[in-house]
Amino acid sequence: MRATVIHGPNDIRVEEVPDATVRTPTDAVVRVVLACICGSDLWAYRGVAKRQPGQRIGHEFLGVVEAVGAEVGSVAVGDLVVAPFVWSDGVCDFCREGLQTSCPHGGFWGEPGSDGGQGEAVRVPYADGTLVRLPAEAAGDERLLTALLALSDVMATGHHAALAARVRPGATVAVVGDGAVGLCGVLAAKRLGAEQIIALGRHTARTDIARSFGATDVVAERGEAAIAAVRELTGGQGAHAVLEAVGTEESMRTAISIARDGGAVGYVGVPHGGSAGVDIGQMFGRNIAVGGGVAPARAYIPELLADVLAGTIDPSPVFDRSVTLDQVPDGYRAMDERTALKVRITF
Amino acid sequence: MRATVIHGPNDIRVEEVPDATVRTPTDAVVRVVLACICGSDLWAYRGVAKRQPGQRIGHEFLGVVEAVGAEVGSVAVGDLVVAPFVWSDGVCDFCREGLQTSCPHGGFWGEPGSDGGQGEAVRVPYADGTLVRLPAEAAGDERLLTALLALSDVMATGHHAALAARVRPGATVAVVGDGAVGLCGVLAAKRLGAEQIIALGRHTARTDIARSFGATDVVAERGEAAIAAVRELTGGQGAHAVLEAVGTEESMRTAISIARDGGAVGYVGVPHGGSAGVDIGQMFGRNIAVGGGVAPARAYIPELLADVLAGTIDPSPVFDRSVTLDQVPDGYRAMDERTALKVRITF
Repeated sequence: MRATVIHGPNDIRVEEVPDATVRTPTDAVVRVVLACICGSDLWAYRGVAKRQPGQRIGHEFLGVVEAVGAEVGSVAVGDLVVAPFVWSDGVCDFCREGLQTSCPHGGFWGEPGSDGGQGEAVRVPYADGTLVRLPAEAAGDERLLTALLALSDVMATGHHAALAARVRPGATVAVVGDGAVGLCGVLAAKRLGAEQIIALGRHTARTDIARSFGATDVVAERGEAAIAAVRELTGGQGAHAVLEAVGTEESMRTAISIARDGGAVGYVGVPHGGSAGVDIGQMFGRNIAVGGGVAPARAYIPELLADVLAGTIDPSPVFDRSVTLDQVPDGYRAMDERTALKVRITF
Repeated sequence: MRATVIHGPNDIRVEEVPDATVRTPTDAVVRVVLACICGSDLWAYRGVAKRQPGQRIGHEFLGVVEAVGAEVGSVAVGDLVVAPFVWSDGVCDFCREGLQTSCPHGGFWGEPGSDGGQGEAVRVPYADGTLVRLPAEAAGDERLLTALLALSDVMATGHHAALAARVRPGATVAVVGDGAVGLCGVLAAKRLGAEQIIALGRHTARTDIARSFGATDVVAERGEAAIAAVRELTGGQGAHAVLEAVGTEESMRTAISIARDGGAVGYVGVPHGGSAGVDIGQMFGRNIAVGGGVAPARAYIPELLADVLAGTIDPSPVFDRSVTLDQVPDGYRAMDERTALKVRITF
């Protein structure tokens, strides 16, 4: 089969790799129908996050079950399924509590020895714990399929940020980051009943999506000017809930600074700036909490899926470009150069 | 009147100062009956926290109302009252929400221009928003008065840590720090229904109090050994809730490391180590939240008071030495040398 392989910084290739097969009785093989490129893939692409040369890449996909191991019971050959961005056994303490990202048997697509999502097929460990069935009818609806693809990561991650930031009905929310996760955070905050949603971002194409997702205000400034602008928009107090969807030192500093006293920052941007942006002195005096982390997408997919199917939320607009598998390197370049927001891969 | 004044590091004196008087219609004057020395006063004593030479010091006291301004309605001359460690107006957004420490009219006892708690009397700004009445009968019960004194800071702060760490019935809790706040954190965790409470501390006299307050386990190790010991005691998983009551880089690092994935650290130790102990990478991968800060004692006093009066909780054992006002410098020395846990001041 063909799949995307990362050989080093800026060196993404689509190559022939061994076919995905059932290796253990709990495995399934999924023929990929839709996949995509994540902002966090760019950390590897840019060489900031280290990868072994030859590792697969991609962690967001949906597709059709092609084979199942003897012990797989929740999905069958022919089922349309979506995978969260980590696999998990579904039976451990953490899985049962809804923190599948801490499953001791879990793993991340593309880690050494595993398939990545940006390929023709994926061997899925612990298929029962990992995969979520989608209605078969969705297969014929490209817009709906695209929206469902967002459940594998960005929509679930935006929701995680909103929960960690304690978004409640009536809350004032600020979202730091206008990438796909930040935009999904806007959608998640709106879904949870936020009254005022301030999107921080300077790219009109993206902030327009934020507005269509429910943002009531847009702040194009950065740093101190952004902090002042958010304070101005919130009667001087700051936002009850701040979603941090970037992961740099500056973004975390901004997020904490624009939080209202007693508020919370939900951070889901993979940290690449150390802890220097976490001003514990400011947090202490103003009782700002910081929570979040890697989103247990598997826990959230069922409820978000219901809302996507009902038409209540539609994250599909975060995908603004489509490529075929062979064009995946172009997709990385486009996202790296910020000419594309989020690139979908069709098969 | 006589009051404690800090002239510089290790230079605490009891001196004649201007009498406390009603200056604005919302003021009250409280004649102090009991006060005490706080672990956080030691930061000033040691010169780590800067003070202007001649500032008053002390932020925990209870006493009898001696005079009230024309607009004070909730307390009257002769009332026995306790003060939280900050004053607050009682009517702003933050006060109404229970975050009185963020009151824009609030202040900290001993800040320039104000009286400190370690003196014969205190001018209390915003008396209606600040003071809490105590039953008159308590005046004759020294043990009870001592327990009530703890509400001004350490018991409320321990409770804040427990709430920020999300202590719930059945939870496994770890408490970093065996000072008075850490011990009150044990008591607060027990009160909130924690099932297992692991106290980290190496001073037997203190950990004995922790056990009497509800600690089920004591870990005397520090650093990596402490982390290993807590993991061992929690089936390898760590504690759902960790109370951090020290404020150093190492204590924060330990607190985050012993938290269970998905758990929370409630930190109330005044931060003196910067953010280096906040390992955002570890927090991210394991979904550890960090919350807390300066405790809004005023919000918690009513419910904690009810439990102290009912005999459900008794924080009085954290006071292990008494001094008179003139002996306050000796009290600081004793706490600095750790020969006393918490020093009470009688008048």
